[in-house]
Amino acid sequence: MIKSGIVNQRLQDLREVMQREHLAAFIFPSTDPHQSEYVADHWKGREFISGFDGSAGTAVVTMNSAALWTDSRYFLAAEEQLKGTEYQLMRLKIEGTPTIAEWIGRECGAGVEVGIDGWCSSASEIRDLIADLRQQGGLTLRTNLDPLRMIWRDCPTIPENPVEIYPLQYAGEATHDKITRIRRALREQHVDGMLMSALDDIAWTLNLRGTDVHCNPVFVSYLLISSKDVTLYINKVKLSPEVVTYLNAEGVGVASYENVSKGLKDYFEYNILLDPNEVNYVLFKSVTREIVEAESPVKRMKTVKNEREIAGFKSAMLKDGIAMVKFLKWVDEWKEESGKGKENSLTTESEISVSKRLEALRAEQPLYRGLSFDTIAGYQAHGAIVHYEATPETDIPLQPEGFLLLDSGAQYLDGTTDITRTVALGPLTEEQKRVYTLVLKGHIQIELCKFPSGASGTQLDILAREALWREGLNYLHGTGHGVGTYLNVHEGPHQFRMEWKPAPLVAGMTITDEPGIYLAGKFGVRIENTLLITPYKETEFGKFLQFEPLTLCPIDTSPVISDLLLPEEMAWLDSYHQFVYDTLAPHLDEAETAWLREACQPIKKKL
Amino acid sequence: MIKSGIVNQRLQDLREVMQREHLAAFIFPSTDPHQSEYVADHWKGREFISGFDGSAGTAVVTMNSAALWTDSRYFLAAEEQLKGTEYQLMRLKIEGTPTIAEWIGRECGAGVEVGIDGWCSSASEIRDLIADLRQQGGLTLRTNLDPLRMIWRDCPTIPENPVEIYPLQYAGEATHDKITRIRRALREQHVDGMLMSALDDIAWTLNLRGTDVHCNPVFVSYLLISSKDVTLYINKVKLSPEVVTYLNAEGVGVASYENVSKGLKDYFEYNILLDPNEVNYVLFKSVTREIVEAESPVKRMKTVKNEREIAGFKSAMLKDGIAMVKFLKWVDEWKEESGKGKENSLTTESEISVSKRLEALRAEQPLYRGLSFDTIAGYQAHGAIVHYEATPETDIPLQPEGFLLLDSGAQYLDGTTDITRTVALGPLTEEQKRVYTLVLKGHIQIELCKFPSGASGTQLDILAREALWREGLNYLHGTGHGVGTYLNVHEGPHQFRMEWKPAPLVAGMTITDEPGIYLAGKFGVRIENTLLITPYKETEFGKFLQFEPLTLCPIDTSPVISDLLLPEEMAWLDSYHQFVYDTLAPHLDEAETAWLREACQPIKKKL
Repeated sequence: MIKSGIVNQRLQDLREVMQREHLAAFIFPSTDPHQSEYVADHWKGREFISGFDGSAGTAVVTMNSAALWTDSRYFLAAEEQLKGTEYQLMRLKIEGTPTIAEWIGRECGAGVEVGIDGWCSSASEIRDLIADLRQQGGLTLRTNLDPLRMIWRDCPTIPENPVEIYPLQYAGEATHDKITRIRRALREQHVDGMLMSALDDIAWTLNLRGTDVHCNPVFVSYLLISSKDVTLYINKVKLSPEVVTYLNAEGVGVASYENVSKGLKDYFEYNILLDPNEVNYVLFKSVTREIVEAESPVKRMKTVKNEREIAGFKSAMLKDGIAMVKFLKWVDEWKEESGKGKENSLTTESEISVSKRLEALRAEQPLYRGLSFDTIAGYQAHGAIVHYEATPETDIPLQPEGFLLLDSGAQYLDGTTDITRTVALGPLTEEQKRVYTLVLKGHIQIELCKFPSGASGTQLDILAREALWREGLNYLHGTGHGVGTYLNVHEGPHQFRMEWKPAPLVAGMTITDEPGIYLAGKFGVRIENTLLITPYKETEFGKFLQFEPLTLCPIDTSPVISDLLLPEEMAWLDSYHQFVYDTLAPHLDEAETAWLREACQPIKKKL
Repeated sequence: MIKSGIVNQRLQDLREVMQREHLAAFIFPSTDPHQSEYVADHWKGREFISGFDGSAGTAVVTMNSAALWTDSRYFLAAEEQLKGTEYQLMRLKIEGTPTIAEWIGRECGAGVEVGIDGWCSSASEIRDLIADLRQQGGLTLRTNLDPLRMIWRDCPTIPENPVEIYPLQYAGEATHDKITRIRRALREQHVDGMLMSALDDIAWTLNLRGTDVHCNPVFVSYLLISSKDVTLYINKVKLSPEVVTYLNAEGVGVASYENVSKGLKDYFEYNILLDPNEVNYVLFKSVTREIVEAESPVKRMKTVKNEREIAGFKSAMLKDGIAMVKFLKWVDEWKEESGKGKENSLTTESEISVSKRLEALRAEQPLYRGLSFDTIAGYQAHGAIVHYEATPETDIPLQPEGFLLLDSGAQYLDGTTDITRTVALGPLTEEQKRVYTLVLKGHIQIELCKFPSGASGTQLDILAREALWREGLNYLHGTGHGVGTYLNVHEGPHQFRMEWKPAPLVAGMTITDEPGIYLAGKFGVRIENTLLITPYKETEFGKFLQFEPLTLCPIDTSPVISDLLLPEEMAWLDSYHQFVYDTLAPHLDEAETAWLREACQPIKKKL
């Protein structure tokens, strides 16, 4: 955590630049020129200027004030991290929270100029911002200045890590075939080419992976596709001779990263597809041909997994399940010892120590490449901080009572995992049992759902919430997101969420199912499997789809109040546990198998 | 029904005009200059030219071909009505159905001109159409010609029916107060005025009602609101001296209907709000001031009922329930007689005869003003035609078996009703019982739902469908719509439906809950109550809402397969029936009360 004194000093440095440039306010979003959710250190400018290190947040600095907007996942963490700084926390989607433009208008008055780095916001974000600022007494926006280049002296460089080829046996489709499909999709929209800017889209298209972003196996680059050429804009030190040869063979040329603006200027086809939600404002404005504004066709293609990718997911989930079982068995042993009143003789375990243990168990698995995101291990009240990541300052020892919420995942060469389990470490309150059971009901209702092909996740989302809503409970995050193939753990555009997302759900997509409840200061519960969408049946009313769980790990049944479960919910739980047992047991030793058999007992027998 | 020979003759008349005007195709939508769902006879041009009389459909005529687009509600009816004409039926939302522009492009080739009457389409429809036609090889659109004025010699005139004052005791809010609220809402959007074009919005705002449109108590007019003036554009013969005095007292001026274009040209404020989905293209184009494109604030205001309106709804529902109980008792007696093998001595009843009987029973009720839509009485296979209206040609006698689907409603001065019951007339097949029970489950899950204030109907819709989807069944219409206060039976923008509708659900709204299943050639089931949205509870997670049934009428439990119902679904059914009995019984005679007691028995006892 950055000390508040340092943050306030940086604000003073920034204000000197702002004064020189006659800027009344400066806006720092959380992303990079590629609109990445997680960014390389070079682009962590919002963290530099505010001290807040969550994945989503926007800092705004005026000459006399500063504020940070973030969403409900980060309310508690941001409050903590902004303490002692000038920053005021702005809670998104809470009544009374002003928009950024409203706040600037209020703080700075009419007619002033505001700054933002046009490279690090999408074209549509900037357009909206310009319109919003104009509404606030005619404020204007300047986009061609990055003050951090002047005040962030030890800013890390843009990563130069090497790129590796993602083998066809996992990717399942060769790059030249993907490019043929992309060009066909573009032709259907009467478009000649496109600029690809999202790093995971580029990695997927080229069957390449990198290590430029923590936990995300992507590499910094742009890809320009025309009807004749494909050009990768990348720092060439990242490419081994083998990769250069490979790209050549797939019909992909290489140019330097900085030359992408020039590449766009030299693009001579009639029109070009740019996704205004994805391409940054500076590049968008540098295009001289007719722009077709549309979602990149790659977004959708990437989310529909082919047979090899699905096989890879299942293999990765098997390994992840083995690691999880070894881990949960170890937690159980710790519980048992502590239950015998042997606390004093026990090793002290904490949020960080169990996270490390789990990471080590995953690292033993073949093709392990690292975590897919920083492990969230929140004990009791920390479990109520949605995106909590324990640090040495916040870490607390586990006690033999209450809930440990564990949201974790790994990158394996054959697939990416994402799983949450909430584990009872000992006695629970009635409230804890009740909330746990309601969250489990929501989780199971999504697993049980059948739906017409093409339905949106917004339509299905309520199934995870209705049991909670009936008791006046809710969670403000989405219910689920797509998962990449040895790629980003968050993959869109399809999702389960309360807000409208038109992206249709189709067979072959992965999606997580992760309802939760967070009672501030008390505890949090979240239960998450990653699911695969598969065909269900076809009738005179069309094609229907279903979910198949990919995640292989028992769900703690000890907190369940069985009277709250419907017979179909109990039956799902039992059959899921049977499936987990049958799949994992052949890969476990005798003691592990015995533990798993017990954990997978039918719920009626256990209660 | 218009004979096919007549339709084909009209096509020839039209083509003479088209040839003279060098138009390759002409498009006839189903609406009027006010974008009404149901229109006065004067505007039934699409029916005139195609013979198809459904409420939704678009006819397109080229020099050599003709086609009619309609949605799934009307597939069977349209097929029947288009028989023997040149028209090809285009099924909306079915794979392979071309868009109108695609079809015209295919039929007429590139570069030709297409016609449409710019008065009878909204600005946004025309804009979309222009863009779509341009995509099809550069087709252009002409909007200033209405060929029907030349070929429809006996076209009915625009209605001149008198307008009446809607008493404040039912409206609950005076016109000048409503106008104050509207102006406040406009100011919040920084707008000086608006053109109101939707007939029900105008009726609601002015607390006036009319009889210009079959079943809809509206009157043809426009309302122009500026920061200083309010002007009603209407044919003055419709206004009695009493209404003129009333309007005067409420601060509303009057001008003739034809002068609305002039009124817009003379509008001298800085800007004006027009809803491009509502205001027709010709009027939209005639505005010379800055246009703020936004939804009319009246849409939302009108849907949130005040206390008087809610009291009126409850009073109307009581009367409607009494009529329904008398009717269902009579149906039961007919069933009983026929069950005794006395078919021969029975009066023959048919779809039309029972509709008339029900209408007569409603007409006995105080403040009855007519039907709120044409009764849908579909016996067996006719029940599978979603918007079936029996005609002397299609009417069939009822038999003591299978299902009669009855969707009906009335206009009372104090409120509007809309109810569907599916009644077993005798033995049912297993499939009928199963489908009935699944539809009932869907209906009840909506009734049981609790949800955060502001949720959209798109989020809730799945609760009515999930039981059906699990068996590969679905219905392609929405699950529910708002209902007006002695106004249109379809009131938006809030709805339950699969398609995205952002309109948030808030306390005070009415909404129907009407899932169904339609098995072509077999039978249809639909079960509908009208609901009121009321507060449920407030917690740290915000305000939650619930539904309260307004409709008072037993649901036939004889087809129910009780094993398919959840305990909570049975409990809802029993408590609803208790509520229906307790509310209606004091208003019924002894025999009716005895019948109702039996019909409202708890389901467990009955099965």
